Amino acid sequence: MPFKLLQSDVNTKARLGLLTTSHGDIESPFFMPVGTNATVKGISAERLEEMGAQLMLSNTYHIYLRPGMDVINHFGGLHSFMSWDKPILTDSGGYQVFSLTRFRKLTDKGVRFQSHLDGSKHMLTPEDVVDIERGLGSDMIMPLDECAPYPCDYEHAEESVRRTTLWAKRTKEHFYSKPNDKGQLLFGIVQGAVYDDLRKRSAEELLTIDFPAYAIGGVSVGEPVDLMFKTIDWVEPLLPEDKPRYLMGIGLPDQIVRAVGEGIDMFDTCIPTRFGRHGTALTHHGRMIVLNAEYSRDERPVDEKCGCSVCKRYSRAYIRHLIKSSEMLGLELLSYHNVCFYIHLMKEIRETIKENSFTAFKEEFLANYYQK
Amino acid sequence: MPFKLLQSDVNTKARLGLLTTSHGDIESPFFMPVGTNATVKGISAERLEEMGAQLMLSNTYHIYLRPGMDVINHFGGLHSFMSWDKPILTDSGGYQVFSLTRFRKLTDKGVRFQSHLDGSKHMLTPEDVVDIERGLGSDMIMPLDECAPYPCDYEHAEESVRRTTLWAKRTKEHFYSKPNDKGQLLFGIVQGAVYDDLRKRSAEELLTIDFPAYAIGGVSVGEPVDLMFKTIDWVEPLLPEDKPRYLMGIGLPDQIVRAVGEGIDMFDTCIPTRFGRHGTALTHHGRMIVLNAEYSRDERPVDEKCGCSVCKRYSRAYIRHLIKSSEMLGLELLSYHNVCFYIHLMKEIRETIKENSFTAFKEEFLANYYQK
Repeated sequence: MPFKLLQSDVNTKARLGLLTTSHGDIESPFFMPVGTNATVKGISAERLEEMGAQLMLSNTYHIYLRPGMDVINHFGGLHSFMSWDKPILTDSGGYQVFSLTRFRKLTDKGVRFQSHLDGSKHMLTPEDVVDIERGLGSDMIMPLDECAPYPCDYEHAEESVRRTTLWAKRTKEHFYSKPNDKGQLLFGIVQGAVYDDLRKRSAEELLTIDFPAYAIGGVSVGEPVDLMFKTIDWVEPLLPEDKPRYLMGIGLPDQIVRAVGEGIDMFDTCIPTRFGRHGTALTHHGRMIVLNAEYSRDERPVDEKCGCSVCKRYSRAYIRHLIKSSEMLGLELLSYHNVCFYIHLMKEIRETIKENSFTAFKEEFLANYYQK
Repeated sequence: MPFKLLQSDVNTKARLGLLTTSHGDIESPFFMPVGTNATVKGISAERLEEMGAQLMLSNTYHIYLRPGMDVINHFGGLHSFMSWDKPILTDSGGYQVFSLTRFRKLTDKGVRFQSHLDGSKHMLTPEDVVDIERGLGSDMIMPLDECAPYPCDYEHAEESVRRTTLWAKRTKEHFYSKPNDKGQLLFGIVQGAVYDDLRKRSAEELLTIDFPAYAIGGVSVGEPVDLMFKTIDWVEPLLPEDKPRYLMGIGLPDQIVRAVGEGIDMFDTCIPTRFGRHGTALTHHGRMIVLNAEYSRDERPVDEKCGCSVCKRYSRAYIRHLIKSSEMLGLELLSYHNVCFYIHLMKEIRETIKENSFTAFKEEFLANYYQK
């Protein structure tokens, strides 16, 4: 088994685990920096290594469209193309087709869509997506699923669960029809929108197919945070203890800390780099709009509790000046700090689970985070 | 004396020197990465240190306008504000007033101008500029001068020489009216546009005032390269051997190699970062437009003779993909390589002067650089 549950928290559902891939082991719970276009925006591979990133996520949809699989195949996979030796998880493109494309048509066969880049027309089946992700050489691969929007009526949600199960079955068959010589880890993705019974049905159907890992998808699509946590409540108890659980596209630091306490192992979000590019820092005291005039002479680091190389060296006043001057370096430094903040947070989470102090950590973290 | 001439080349006018500042020694000939807004665009201070930058240049005009001297004074100077411990040279703003402002009026008293940022009105005298640069705490400071444009008629050029000399005299008097407790090195700037006699007159007048270092200004303002080299020919023989010579705002790699052979010690240009931001790499074989389709599967580094951390790790195809995807990291990586290219070039120049092989190096470098 590629996943080993090392420890369960005494007071919460938090779990400590170890996930083995052919590009190295990953301690869970963990956060995956998002590298949509084969790069975490503004942060080089060296810097990701330096800050202790255990792995990264990339987007099948984007890489498939640009640079395209001919280039990736020429390089023998995404790791070599990006010059990144640690594990990579690739999503399936299901979410991007739902959120980015100008035109899309889903049938049981697969999905037809027009590229958001040049309007070119494409058709991808669940089998195609597996073949692409095999070509990418990702360590963890997500199957094509139908990501229902929010709000979404029951009939639409039910239909997306039916199709997601159908595609999951075909994905698994197609994936295992060839030897899994790269030791890729295939996930099943639970859908069902905000409906208790549909979420449970989706989970049960995927469990029957039997995947080595499970994800909760169709969250972070605009629903209230409470509903997202309800979704975890519905699904998590059904998931096997000895397999990793991935909450897709979540979330803000407080949401991650809370979701770890609900038994989630894996997270990804583009929040740290997106916020960084818009001049917002994430700190132990919540969001900091670095452009605020109050920081114009502030000699303190962005986050006084953070030991990242940006916080060790640069003041709020200097970073504010860079952002105000539209200097690329300001966005780079904030993105670096923000991703670091997530990575350090996950490390702290793992350490406190290990020491049976996660609940105290969680309470203190949330109290600081929500304090103004 | 802060400058020590260590060695003169046997075949050319190239010189090896050592410049002492209160922030460390600098081996010459050297290149100064340009940090206009208190940052070399897209390159952090750590990265500049890592690539062996000996110092950097910053722009008085820009820093004076933003963040403003109140912020800089609060931090006790530019070094502390930027978190940069190596030497800094600041220009005087003369060139920026000439090239950036919407409105300007020069009188013998000083220069009136409107900020290019917000249209606010300012008046700076040569004495003000000295006071600002003292506040910045720069290791090398340039006096306010009048930078004549190209083309420029004789009368205008003559007037700019007269005013530049007048201002230089007042600058020196004002600067030395207080103790030079930071050991700042004050330059005289030779003007005179493209007129042999005016250039010589300007140099002689400045020599009479007597500065510890000299610069050739009013070059790189649109004149043909040949005229720029003629200017060096006119001025260089007049400059004392035991003082550093700075050719302001120059230039492309081949121009720098040639100008070293003409006896120049110091260079600055924003070419490496500006080219980087526009997707152009500088290499031993000249310019490389990384976006060209021919590089789409090219696994080689940008410059096969370069050992910088970008060339060690990333392929042309990957960087091309980043640029094509409008990813900030592409511009960061190219800017990093380009600045590194200049710094390594200067190191090679110093080594070959030391080994009396500069002429051979220069010929080989130029042959490769111009080869297509």
